[in-house]
Amino acid sequence: MTPLPALLTLDDYRKYSERNLIKLARDYYESGAEQETTLRRNVSAFDNLLIRPRCLRSVESIDTSVTWLNGKRAAYPLGIAPTAFQKMATKDGELSTVRGAAASKSIMICSSWSTTSIEDIGKEAKIVGAALWFQLYVYKDRNVTESLIHRAEAAGVEALVLTVDTPVLGRRLKDTYNKFSLPKHLKFANFESNTQAEMPKGHTGESGFMQYVSSQIDPSLDWKTLEWIKTKTKLPVIVKGVMRGDDALLALGAGVDGIIVSNHGGRQMDSSIATIEALPEVLAAVDKRIPVWMDGGVRNGRDIFKAVALGARGVFVGRPVLWGLATSGSSGVAAVLGILQKEFLHSMQLSGYRSIEELQKDDRAVVHCSKL
Amino acid sequence: MTPLPALLTLDDYRKYSERNLIKLARDYYESGAEQETTLRRNVSAFDNLLIRPRCLRSVESIDTSVTWLNGKRAAYPLGIAPTAFQKMATKDGELSTVRGAAASKSIMICSSWSTTSIEDIGKEAKIVGAALWFQLYVYKDRNVTESLIHRAEAAGVEALVLTVDTPVLGRRLKDTYNKFSLPKHLKFANFESNTQAEMPKGHTGESGFMQYVSSQIDPSLDWKTLEWIKTKTKLPVIVKGVMRGDDALLALGAGVDGIIVSNHGGRQMDSSIATIEALPEVLAAVDKRIPVWMDGGVRNGRDIFKAVALGARGVFVGRPVLWGLATSGSSGVAAVLGILQKEFLHSMQLSGYRSIEELQKDDRAVVHCSKL
Amino acid sequence: MTPLPALLTLDDYRKYSERNLIKLARDYYESGAEQETTLRRNVSAFDNLLIRPRCLRSVESIDTSVTWLNGKRAAYPLGIAPTAFQKMATKDGELSTVRGAAASKSIMICSSWSTTSIEDIGKEAKIVGAALWFQLYVYKDRNVTESLIHRAEAAGVEALVLTVDTPVLGRRLKDTYNKFSLPKHLKFANFESNTQAEMPKGHTGESGFMQYVSSQIDPSLDWKTLEWIKTKTKLPVIVKGVMRGDDALLALGAGVDGIIVSNHGGRQMDSSIATIEALPEVLAAVDKRIPVWMDGGVRNGRDIFKAVALGARGVFVGRPVLWGLATSGSSGVAAVLGILQKEFLHSMQLSGYRSIEELQKDDRAVVHCSKL
Amino acid sequence: MTPLPALLTLDDYRKYSERNLIKLARDYYESGAEQETTLRRNVSAFDNLLIRPRCLRSVESIDTSVTWLNGKRAAYPLGIAPTAFQKMATKDGELSTVRGAAASKSIMICSSWSTTSIEDIGKEAKIVGAALWFQLYVYKDRNVTESLIHRAEAAGVEALVLTVDTPVLGRRLKDTYNKFSLPKHLKFANFESNTQAEMPKGHTGESGFMQYVSSQIDPSLDWKTLEWIKTKTKLPVIVKGVMRGDDALLALGAGVDGIIVSNHGGRQMDSSIATIEALPEVLAAVDKRIPVWMDGGVRNGRDIFKAVALGARGVFVGRPVLWGLATSGSSGVAAVLGILQKEFLHSMQLSGYRSIEELQKDDRAVVHCSKL
Ligand SMILES: Cc1cc2nc3c(=O)[nH]c(=O)nc-3n(C[C@H](O)[C@H](O)[C@H](O)COP(=O)(O)O)c2cc1C
Ligand SMILES: Cc1cc2nc3c(=O)[nH]c(=O)nc-3n(C[C@H](O)[C@H](O)[C@H](O)COP(=O)(O)O)c2cc1C
Ligand SMILES: Cc1cc2nc3c(=O)[nH]c(=O)nc-3n(C[C@H](O)[C@H](O)[C@H](O)COP(=O)(O)O)c2cc1C
Ligand SMILES: Cc1cc2nc3c(=O)[nH]c(=O)nc-3n(C[C@H](O)[C@H](O)[C@H](O)COP(=O)(O)O)c2cc1C
Repeated sequence: MTPLPALLTLDDYRKYSERNLIKLARDYYESGAEQETTLRRNVSAFDNLLIRPRCLRSVESIDTSVTWLNGKRAAYPLGIAPTAFQKMATKDGELSTVRGAAASKSIMICSSWSTTSIEDIGKEAKIVGAALWFQLYVYKDRNVTESLIHRAEAAGVEALVLTVDTPVLGRRLKDTYNKFSLPKHLKFANFESNTQAEMPKGHTGESGFMQYVSSQIDPSLDWKTLEWIKTKTKLPVIVKGVMRGDDALLALGAGVDGIIVSNHGGRQMDSSIATIEALPEVLAAVDKRIPVWMDGGVRNGRDIFKAVALGARGVFVGRPVLWGLATSGSSGVAAVLGILQKEFLHSMQLSGYRSIEELQKDDRAVVHCSKL
Repeated sequence: MTPLPALLTLDDYRKYSERNLIKLARDYYESGAEQETTLRRNVSAFDNLLIRPRCLRSVESIDTSVTWLNGKRAAYPLGIAPTAFQKMATKDGELSTVRGAAASKSIMICSSWSTTSIEDIGKEAKIVGAALWFQLYVYKDRNVTESLIHRAEAAGVEALVLTVDTPVLGRRLKDTYNKFSLPKHLKFANFESNTQAEMPKGHTGESGFMQYVSSQIDPSLDWKTLEWIKTKTKLPVIVKGVMRGDDALLALGAGVDGIIVSNHGGRQMDSSIATIEALPEVLAAVDKRIPVWMDGGVRNGRDIFKAVALGARGVFVGRPVLWGLATSGSSGVAAVLGILQKEFLHSMQLSGYRSIEELQKDDRAVVHCSKL
Repeated sequence: MTPLPALLTLDDYRKYSERNLIKLARDYYESGAEQETTLRRNVSAFDNLLIRPRCLRSVESIDTSVTWLNGKRAAYPLGIAPTAFQKMATKDGELSTVRGAAASKSIMICSSWSTTSIEDIGKEAKIVGAALWFQLYVYKDRNVTESLIHRAEAAGVEALVLTVDTPVLGRRLKDTYNKFSLPKHLKFANFESNTQAEMPKGHTGESGFMQYVSSQIDPSLDWKTLEWIKTKTKLPVIVKGVMRGDDALLALGAGVDGIIVSNHGGRQMDSSIATIEALPEVLAAVDKRIPVWMDGGVRNGRDIFKAVALGARGVFVGRPVLWGLATSGSSGVAAVLGILQKEFLHSMQLSGYRSIEELQKDDRAVVHCSKL
Repeated sequence: MTPLPALLTLDDYRKYSERNLIKLARDYYESGAEQETTLRRNVSAFDNLLIRPRCLRSVESIDTSVTWLNGKRAAYPLGIAPTAFQKMATKDGELSTVRGAAASKSIMICSSWSTTSIEDIGKEAKIVGAALWFQLYVYKDRNVTESLIHRAEAAGVEALVLTVDTPVLGRRLKDTYNKFSLPKHLKFANFESNTQAEMPKGHTGESGFMQYVSSQIDPSLDWKTLEWIKTKTKLPVIVKGVMRGDDALLALGAGVDGIIVSNHGGRQMDSSIATIEALPEVLAAVDKRIPVWMDGGVRNGRDIFKAVALGARGVFVGRPVLWGLATSGSSGVAAVLGILQKEFLHSMQLSGYRSIEELQKDDRAVVHCSKL
């Protein structure tokens, strides 16, 4: 294996990873819904936020850690968002991710649609010492759902993440043109029956993935489903995909333990607002009663700095982890997360904030460009 | 005939249709007035509106239907705007459109300047079961106008649509360079006399079409003309081309039954505001007393969602129907409308609105980007 | 001579004219000062203004005429701005322009720096029946200035236009690189002595034109100079180059008869605001006590419509006349002005304003895009 | 040596200088931190400010001078920002700069990291008659720092400039890819010991420069360090790198003699606001009690005009001086500064301000484009 060239930024990893991915996989990983307006906006909306650095503040020692959930601290306000089908990126798939997570002391959220079973991921997590959360899709067949919950619990995950933005699948055009379906040798590893473990072939106008979701996933999901889930588990339940203050209040009312502001990386409702634009209103509604994270468009440490400065507990990254994974497996994952951590630390040093608490106390650390 | 490739979006149809159109026709269909500022703005103004999706709202069953006019429901808030000379797009012209309308349960507005007579269109509409409205241009010769009204009534149309933005024809540069005139074998099929049924040849600096309009169409049209029309028909009368609140109030005063906010697809007054920008002030003035539709720049289901969220009764599409028509006749028309319907439904599912009533009750479902 | 192709817009004339101009002349005509920020902004600022068309207003007869100065009416709110050295564009230079002005019933402002003497231009103006104003540059030698005034009066001009934005010449980079100087066979035709009639050669870093201006033109020009001019003439005196409300008030105080809001077509202070942006504050300060015109960036009839809707008495065009001149002499000038007139008339028809008075009464005929 | 072509603008010098620089040096000079957002914004933010020129104000004699510090006047509100390693640009390095400074009557701020010793620079400054300030980096070893201060004093500098935006070095990607380190034959000329005089080699992922800074420079710098410095010197102390009003107040409290608003030319905290955007709030906080300068993105005389109009005492330029230096040594430096001075003078003439006092009294000489 020829050694990697210097890869300094997430974008370097994105470019490099392309050579290791077949078009079908690359398209599946990269694409957003429809015209990809929201996909692009998630990223560009960060550029509208500008940092106002302080000076002469003795930045010899910086504390980047943060209380993550129920008193547990995280070294950095950064985790791995759940993404499906990681074996398309690298042979060991989710196992490589969990190793990368451990190496960078990050928490990993495992997708319901992993190509490795939650049991195997959980086992590896214990070996390498990684913290694991489990992302839940609710199947029409509630027994399947309940069994998923119990298996995740048994595998040692610390929280359940209910994805609430996917009652139906967003249409990703590239996947549809590609008639995207999982490569033959890969399965939905958390399911037994063929209809749930295998993805149908795609046909003109509809990817196999889209067929799978509309046949399996329950579009009638609502806050009552959440209550039902809470009766089935003692784990903290976090909802992922809230984009509004009113829904955040409903989430609070339903007793969730945390919220991830997310639009699924621009893969569901196209033309919606960016997540970093939705964050302030969700934070205002929640008023610090539970932690609020965000994901979508985080591409460097300044983005993390901005989200945290606005009040987020932390951020998750989806695609960037896949770029690391496809570039060089677990070490690529660790490298990508390491870059983000280093850039975040660097941002704190250069702007003079010694701790996240100090940063969040300053409500003018970050300003919207329209205010200048 | 080789089968069509996968055409997933309206833009796919636009591109594909180009190969089936001679330059003269394509230019006539596509162009806007002068520098085409308004043509582009109609489309781009939709991008300034962003969707704020809700979550966990049980979207198993969605009702996309809406009261269209006088209590009659439409399956979707979507109809076909009147466009002239459809036989340039496909051999059967307006007959194909009416068949496509029926196949997609859409209403068709037939242009005064159809290349098929309103009698033939009306007959076909009955056979295939399509709802038909008739768009009216007012000729200097009022007998001609009156006869048009009576013939349309007799042909079974359900409403008259008076176009109020064309006292003179907007100058479309491409048509002028092309010295555009109707191909020899085509006629204004709703007229008998040569001067009204045939288009003069163009000459340098003026298309034949421009000559036709200035010789035939009455530039002195005003609200009194509308009153006169109302004395000639029992059909509901809708005005198409209102762009301001003050004019909407005049329309109300004149007793119209509905308003279509329109700038003629950017083909008349260039450098005017976009229709989606004009919609809110017209809605505010009308204050729900009569239905308000809009057309111009609708290119996907999110655009329909936005217009409806702002309060529009529904939207009409002009060029996209011509793209379908030129791509594959009536099935192309049905396909284009079907895409829009599916995308609209999909938008409701993904943003959590189960009915148009529910959507319109939320005054923050859609926000202008400058408010973020 | 091969016949011209169809030239429908001013931009068509601009492009066509390029083939008839040597680089030195084209660069001199086209360029703005320094980075040409203001040159571009003069044009693009018009795009930020949008028209809100009315409908059903009987536009059979439109009156485009306007009181121009001291009760005299103009057929259109449009005149020819003064531009120097017109013989670089066509053999007959200013004589062609005056003929074009007459053919289109436009007023021409003759530059102090014409390549034809004001006497010859005045004579031709009488023959063809054109209205003439004379633009004045104030020479350090006041006798020269005074003699200019008297000669212009004798030649029959109807008003003096004092240019107030050129105490020193703006640096146009292209002219400097070109070491621009007047072609040998051309002179400042309104001057006798060699130092005033001839332009020095350019050298590295300074055009000959720049040398001429700094040696001849008086940088100490102020409002007292204006008073002095008023003692020397009975003609109305108009100041050209006012960009602010406070200066407009000073102009009023000094007894001027009219103001042209201008930044010299972006050729003087680069990075200044656009003229259409300066217009409202000048109009507000003047409060209808004297007429206010504008020039800069007018490229079509919608631009005239916008300026007039904001309250301008009318507009002047500089470069577009040179494009006409270089394309086909006097007929090119007439054609360019004719296009603008026709487009302006067309705009009034399509937006439903029957007279300039009616248009100016509506303070929402034109809106800034940031208000949408 | 072939003579230079006409170089009229700073951009001409930038382009020309490229041919005289090896990639390593060019990249070091040009680059900003990370994605270079702030680097670009420093320049583009000036474009959002527009000039409102006055007219008829007798601009024969313009006074461009300004009180610079402690009653001393400067001919122009313009000085040379400190930049390291000038021998990479031209053989004589800092000596050429000091000569260029003298030739254009500008003040030069000498960097701690000069490739010529402060003693040699000071000697040359006396010979050619240039005013000199000394920029201070605070080393972990306080003896080194103290000795630097004393040597600078002895060399005749008139003020100390403490850089407060570099507790750690901003990551410049190009330098990191290049593994940038000082060319062998060059040293940190103000230091004796090898560890301080020599730059380590770079390795993958870290430039030699970055290693140097993290090993030598004190990240614990704070306002107490400033107090310590003030006990070590009688020279006025100016802080460079303040970007906020609150920090400006702290600076005032600490007794500084002046502030330079700076973000280090976009080389430290990327994604921060532009300096010209930070200037107003710093000025407001300081309320004229001490002088406030700015640097970053000044590329022509209009930029100086804008900064001064907003209230800055003057501006400094970094890269443009390096372009002059690399193009033609001391005469290039003088040329670049001369262009800026001439353009500034020209701006005052063309906008009608006869002195900086007059300009600063007008709070509407410059407006933000969003106010139009
Ligand atoms: C390829 C891919 C697969 C994804 N799969 C899932 C999934 O299985 N479950 C889920 O809740 N979110 C899924 N997401 C959404 C991510 O969890 C996350 O919200 C998103 O990627 C964040 O945006 P980013 O990619 O810009 O960081 C997926 C995203 C991508 C890009
Ligand atoms: C080729 C073409 C022909 C048209 N003919 C007519 C017509 O005959 N009568 C009419 O009222 N509007 C006519 N229109 C305007 C349309 O009814 C409608 O307002 C416009 O097309 C909507 O914009 P869209 O094309 O962006 O959907 C025409 C538009 C086009 C593009
Ligand atoms: C080539 C050229 C020469 C000009 N010469 C003069 C002149 O001699 N006197 C004057 O007052 N303005 C002069 N101007 C400015 C024009 O009168 C007018 O302000 C400007 O051209 C308007 O902008 P526009 O070219 O965008 O229409 C000149 C402009 C140009 C382009
Ligand atoms: C190549 C280079 C080296 C620099 N070295 C120093 C330095 O040694 N000390 C310092 O305080 N600032 C340094 N700066 C920052 C400059 O003093 C100044 O803040 C910046 O260059 C201003 O931006 P401009 O280059 O856009 O004019 C350096 C800047 C550059 C471009």
